[in-house]
Amino acid sequence: MNGVRLFSPATISNLSCGFDVLGLCLETIGDYMEITKSKKKGIYITSIIGEKVPYEVKKNVAGVSSEALIDSLNPDFGFEIKIDKKIKPGSGIGSSAASSVGAVVGINHLLGNPFKPEELIPYALEGEKLACGSEHADNVAPAILGGITLVRSTKPIDIIKLPIPKNLKAVIIHPKIEIKTADARKVLDKSIPLEKASQYWANLGAFVSSLYENNYELMKKSIVDNIIEPKRSQLIPMFDSLKQIANDNDSIGCGISGSGPSVFSLANGLKTAKIINNSFKKIYEETGIPFETYVSDINKSGVKILSAF
Amino acid sequence: MNGVRLFSPATISNLSCGFDVLGLCLETIGDYMEITKSKKKGIYITSIIGEKVPYEVKKNVAGVSSEALIDSLNPDFGFEIKIDKKIKPGSGIGSSAASSVGAVVGINHLLGNPFKPEELIPYALEGEKLACGSEHADNVAPAILGGITLVRSTKPIDIIKLPIPKNLKAVIIHPKIEIKTADARKVLDKSIPLEKASQYWANLGAFVSSLYENNYELMKKSIVDNIIEPKRSQLIPMFDSLKQIANDNDSIGCGISGSGPSVFSLANGLKTAKIINNSFKKIYEETGIPFETYVSDINKSGVKILSAF
Repeated sequence: MNGVRLFSPATISNLSCGFDVLGLCLETIGDYMEITKSKKKGIYITSIIGEKVPYEVKKNVAGVSSEALIDSLNPDFGFEIKIDKKIKPGSGIGSSAASSVGAVVGINHLLGNPFKPEELIPYALEGEKLACGSEHADNVAPAILGGITLVRSTKPIDIIKLPIPKNLKAVIIHPKIEIKTADARKVLDKSIPLEKASQYWANLGAFVSSLYENNYELMKKSIVDNIIEPKRSQLIPMFDSLKQIANDNDSIGCGISGSGPSVFSLANGLKTAKIINNSFKKIYEETGIPFETYVSDINKSGVKILSAF
Repeated sequence: MNGVRLFSPATISNLSCGFDVLGLCLETIGDYMEITKSKKKGIYITSIIGEKVPYEVKKNVAGVSSEALIDSLNPDFGFEIKIDKKIKPGSGIGSSAASSVGAVVGINHLLGNPFKPEELIPYALEGEKLACGSEHADNVAPAILGGITLVRSTKPIDIIKLPIPKNLKAVIIHPKIEIKTADARKVLDKSIPLEKASQYWANLGAFVSSLYENNYELMKKSIVDNIIEPKRSQLIPMFDSLKQIANDNDSIGCGISGSGPSVFSLANGLKTAKIINNSFKKIYEETGIPFETYVSDINKSGVKILSAF
């Protein structure tokens, strides 16, 4: 085996009630990557299409993640990486995580899978560190493992795969304005009132229970963010209108995807998801701001090897 | 039916990872109460044994809870309450909640159960307000409903009953020093760093998952308190030694029960619970501080009507 072609999925992190710890893997949006062995040791990014991201390995999230991985495995050959970047950086749906995860999963595959998927997370986190200055695994974990994940700890890595309720669908609207994760972090208060925090964690506990119970009513009540959303939503045009219309159309919770500007809604069934998607479109069409929307199943298995050659 | 005799259980709140929202109902410790109809309207506390608490209705947690309940139902008779107080006030195992809950459940029973158990919570919270100045339902909810409860919201009341893992037992050591809930709240910072908070809620999410999965290993990892325990444990003699010895003896998590001074440990099976209980005793016997210890099953149904007459 000389190379692999793979799909590395976009992800929704935070999910309103799990800031920095919850994430959900998407089926229909993601980067495509091709990774091939090269005689020369090291990592080489030889093609990037779709979006403008740096070719320089040390400045590219896939580059630094791959370097960290081969530093620990030291194979006597190198890797060329081609990236078809479908997820815009700074969109809030795990653009950097997709690239980092795709790179380390691809290289691991070409080396005969010396690492289990979960063991690759620390390497992919090198990309997150480069992209946003912090090593949260809330996008990386679902991109690698699929499904809905809870990052209990990053040091050491401890990820819980949560059950996926039947018929759960995700809707995303991505307003094409860029919010850098690092900037979206700056608007947050470094400290939060204990009283608000305890309401927040009660909702996270309830959300986890709702997944096990397949209880959409409880899920809806628990997808609440009284801490981060009031700050970050100010950076997102028409956020309140999106949330209102999602709610009016039977959304199972609507909030900021990652650090924004993308906004997500969960839905019980494809029909409802499509209605919410159309209502999102209608609101943004009036703004003149370019945008894209997506309706997606939950991706149960994470990054996919499409072919090996 | 003219009267009821009932058992109102002690409870462990917080459980380290669910400050102000998680609670667990105990089987072997609790107050006994007798409530009888009286011709004269109103609430009358006619006997208190075991511990010294006020007879004056407006100063007694059972009194104010009962008054709130009959204010809303307005029966044309009153109630006499006799309390055999087995749970010391300020012990950290839900002493006030037990009295409040016992009173409202007993009166509700004598009135033909116009309210469902969950609907009684707001009335019992009047007692909590009197006892500690805040209306947290983390003791009241498990005392009324039994089992392990998560208070998602108090306004409106929304309680989730979580699954109870097989063979789960609780160990309690109650050092007989009094820490008032209000005082234990004063040592806490009003704000907490966001970074610590997100670790905290990750553990609560993991704890909820561990209950559904019957996963003791995960439960043990998630019963962690990086926010409250470092502050409050300073008020509890030998806390670090208790925690260490619990850990050495296969504890599934050890922490402060409620606002202390009681310390709890969970255990997988009665044998381990007894070993932890003995190790707690050994440590406290050397201090000269009076104490009691308890080993308890999880009480699955909450307050129990023992007899009606």
